[in-house]
Amino acid sequence: MPGEAGHILRLHLFHVLQTLSPHTAELDVGVPARGLHGEAYRGHVFWDELFVLPYLNLHFPEVSRALLHYRHRRLPQACRAAADAGRAGAMYPWQSGSDGREETQTFHLNPRSGRWLPDHSRLQHHVGSAVAYNVWQYCQASGDTDFLHTKGAEMLLQIARFWADTAVLDPDHGRYRIRGVVGPDEYHDGYPGAGRPGIDDNAYTNVTAAWVLDRALELARTLPEPRRRELFERVGLDRAEPELWEDVSRRLLVPFHRGVISQFDGYQELTELDWDGYRARYGDIRRLDRILESEGDSVNRYQVSKQADALMLGYLFAPAELAGLFRRLGYAMDDDIWRATVEYYLPRTSHGSTLSELVHGWVLVRARRAEAWRYCQEALLGDVADVQGGTTGEGIHLGAMGGTLDLVQRGLTGLETREEALWLDPVPLPEPSGLSEYRFAIRYRGHWGVALRVRAGRLWISVPDSEERPIEVRLADRSLTVAPGESHWLPLPSG
Amino acid sequence: MPGEAGHILRLHLFHVLQTLSPHTAELDVGVPARGLHGEAYRGHVFWDELFVLPYLNLHFPEVSRALLHYRHRRLPQACRAAADAGRAGAMYPWQSGSDGREETQTFHLNPRSGRWLPDHSRLQHHVGSAVAYNVWQYCQASGDTDFLHTKGAEMLLQIARFWADTAVLDPDHGRYRIRGVVGPDEYHDGYPGAGRPGIDDNAYTNVTAAWVLDRALELARTLPEPRRRELFERVGLDRAEPELWEDVSRRLLVPFHRGVISQFDGYQELTELDWDGYRARYGDIRRLDRILESEGDSVNRYQVSKQADALMLGYLFAPAELAGLFRRLGYAMDDDIWRATVEYYLPRTSHGSTLSELVHGWVLVRARRAEAWRYCQEALLGDVADVQGGTTGEGIHLGAMGGTLDLVQRGLTGLETREEALWLDPVPLPEPSGLSEYRFAIRYRGHWGVALRVRAGRLWISVPDSEERPIEVRLADRSLTVAPGESHWLPLPSG
Repeated sequence: MPGEAGHILRLHLFHVLQTLSPHTAELDVGVPARGLHGEAYRGHVFWDELFVLPYLNLHFPEVSRALLHYRHRRLPQACRAAADAGRAGAMYPWQSGSDGREETQTFHLNPRSGRWLPDHSRLQHHVGSAVAYNVWQYCQASGDTDFLHTKGAEMLLQIARFWADTAVLDPDHGRYRIRGVVGPDEYHDGYPGAGRPGIDDNAYTNVTAAWVLDRALELARTLPEPRRRELFERVGLDRAEPELWEDVSRRLLVPFHRGVISQFDGYQELTELDWDGYRARYGDIRRLDRILESEGDSVNRYQVSKQADALMLGYLFAPAELAGLFRRLGYAMDDDIWRATVEYYLPRTSHGSTLSELVHGWVLVRARRAEAWRYCQEALLGDVADVQGGTTGEGIHLGAMGGTLDLVQRGLTGLETREEALWLDPVPLPEPSGLSEYRFAIRYRGHWGVALRVRAGRLWISVPDSEERPIEVRLADRSLTVAPGESHWLPLPSG
Repeated sequence: MPGEAGHILRLHLFHVLQTLSPHTAELDVGVPARGLHGEAYRGHVFWDELFVLPYLNLHFPEVSRALLHYRHRRLPQACRAAADAGRAGAMYPWQSGSDGREETQTFHLNPRSGRWLPDHSRLQHHVGSAVAYNVWQYCQASGDTDFLHTKGAEMLLQIARFWADTAVLDPDHGRYRIRGVVGPDEYHDGYPGAGRPGIDDNAYTNVTAAWVLDRALELARTLPEPRRRELFERVGLDRAEPELWEDVSRRLLVPFHRGVISQFDGYQELTELDWDGYRARYGDIRRLDRILESEGDSVNRYQVSKQADALMLGYLFAPAELAGLFRRLGYAMDDDIWRATVEYYLPRTSHGSTLSELVHGWVLVRARRAEAWRYCQEALLGDVADVQGGTTGEGIHLGAMGGTLDLVQRGLTGLETREEALWLDPVPLPEPSGLSEYRFAIRYRGHWGVALRVRAGRLWISVPDSEERPIEVRLADRSLTVAPGESHWLPLPSG
């Protein structure tokens, strides 16, 4: 990428590879939110790998694999956590240190008010879906069925089990509900004045849980039979469980209001914030939670998000896959609803997390393809400045750095690895910047250096000669198979 | 296997899996000669994985992979050892502890004479070929090209490099020689009265070195081009090196005498031992080295082996592959020469190692197929008694235990995994034992539970349904492809 954005990309690449490379793959420390040197967050591991692995999968799959091993080593601990909570399967921790126990603080300080407040962010059980997503993405990009059928399967099935056991059928709705959780948006850890923590029917949590259950079913179908028998026996899975998964995966509740996806049940009943008033009064309002609490109010009362929540779905899934997920759940979620959802949450988000700008970048690149390059550059520039308000000095934000690399790589090219194929759907080149071509190379399913080049209206793909299997390629308007040793210029559909 | 042999097999299986299973795979301790609890050999790692991995490859490939990672983590140390010795590539240590340094003792005690003697066993550089062999075998059995093209390639190329740099062209012979080494037979660590340690042209060392070089060439040919370029650049390999490998791999010297393979150059000039006299005088003569030294003599003067050395080739390679290796080296080594070689060394071996009976079991099972079951049972029974003279109390012999499991599994069935195919050539069922059928299942290239059944004159193979690739099967008289979901009774050639 030309100009300042190019410099920033190199800076991000440096930091990502300094923390996550073949040289550090065996450290068994996961993807610490602040890299290996930042002191912030006490070195804890959150879900940042969700933003870093998609990049690594296409360049250093062995590093991705090692990072998934990190999660697999802590699977027994996650199963113990689920059992302690009275649930089946694996409940991965929101924050963890070396041994995989839940280490999220139960109180935190609001420096603005000087008060210690209860912290319910450990209810972010969606972190389990992030682990499952990474397992699947890694296996799709690398073709590593050995991992998928062994450690990958063990994680995926236990995470699916947790969701199936956590979802409760509500006869009034005829749908399953997941209640008492916190979504990616940490501003909302409960209903205003409620006696219990957590919110219900978080759209992000439920849609990703449905996806996890669907993948677990797909895996159970495609596992070689002797392995399936052995694994089901080992984890004590009876034949009835997949039937429950099937049912839950098709009937999880996703709330809507006024033609948009609701962040969670009841979100629309919350008060609208006087954004202009608060901006005028406080200037930087990225940490509205602290401001409101210091005023004796609570951010839980408002339609305000710290970071992308429902819109996170637009990061994990490209539009076609996302629409398919909703269809499977029995909801008609078309481009109009999605665009309206994006419009709805953009102005209601305070960007209190470095990941937020990144996710919005992804969403905009995909939803407004003609302007994609601009959004991509904005996401890059936004991250290098210390926008989130003062903690960059305590360590880099690894997720945001890896995520912007990936936004350039997969976002601009519409690259996806799913259904055993390589999907490509480049956004139009930026005009009139003068950039007439860009190129990069990836590792994909045993192929080293698959070369991709994008020019106006066409795409070059070159698969180096080898004894690996041909690559299935899906463009927006057709499919083809590219064998090792072949190169093609492919015309792209216009628009 | 019926009767006492069956009990012994289960005992061996217990010990192998207690030490080497998915639960211990991450200990990063390799295959310690005495398992995880024996104190003998100070817990050191030798080459015992050469006898254990072929069994694990077909049941727990992820454990094999972890054990190869153990060697890969110590590749830099092996390269440093080679550099310190003025050689290129990787010189793996004969005995090592945690950090992969050479830890072989430089003196040892003869308890019979009370004298401390120089110990040159660290010259057993053939351990590097064992590492390379395991890399190749694992990848052939598992189909793990990802490992082969990354860590596997790094090890294999560096080991090949070491051999190419160690071999010296001798203009008198027009062949390359490897001098000053010790073979598997530790009785011979030098020539009688010589001022330098080691012997020259050890047949086992040279043939396996040629095999390693040939595999490195095959790998260099089949590595995906971008990966080859990257790897060659990283290890500083220039284009001329593979040419040298080609030359050395075809012109290493293998000595012969009187129609048999010589254990090393000059072996035939050594004195014949008066075996009957020594047996009459000492009873147990398994440690002839100590007996002779205490008499002021040296075992280096005699045609006496502590354990299988030239015959080890018959363990690593089935007859057809072995003949091919010699052919490539320009030697006509037919069944007659091999049988004569077996006859020659059997009575000249004192079995001072527990691996020796095992290797002879393999050689006899393959060379005398009609009596294979008897030899197999003898190998099993021979190991459970403390034949080697008193050290079993200090720990199990893991190599011998894993090796006997493998002898039953691969030896009796003629199972090989090479050239991307599964080779099967069962020996005749034992008569008149009443055993009319036996069966087992293996993991092979992503297939779980490939079922094999042998009856008189026919073989059953059943490949469970899955999305993996079909299996290429080679019988003694034909080839076929078995797709997932297929089962076949296949007639076996008689004899």
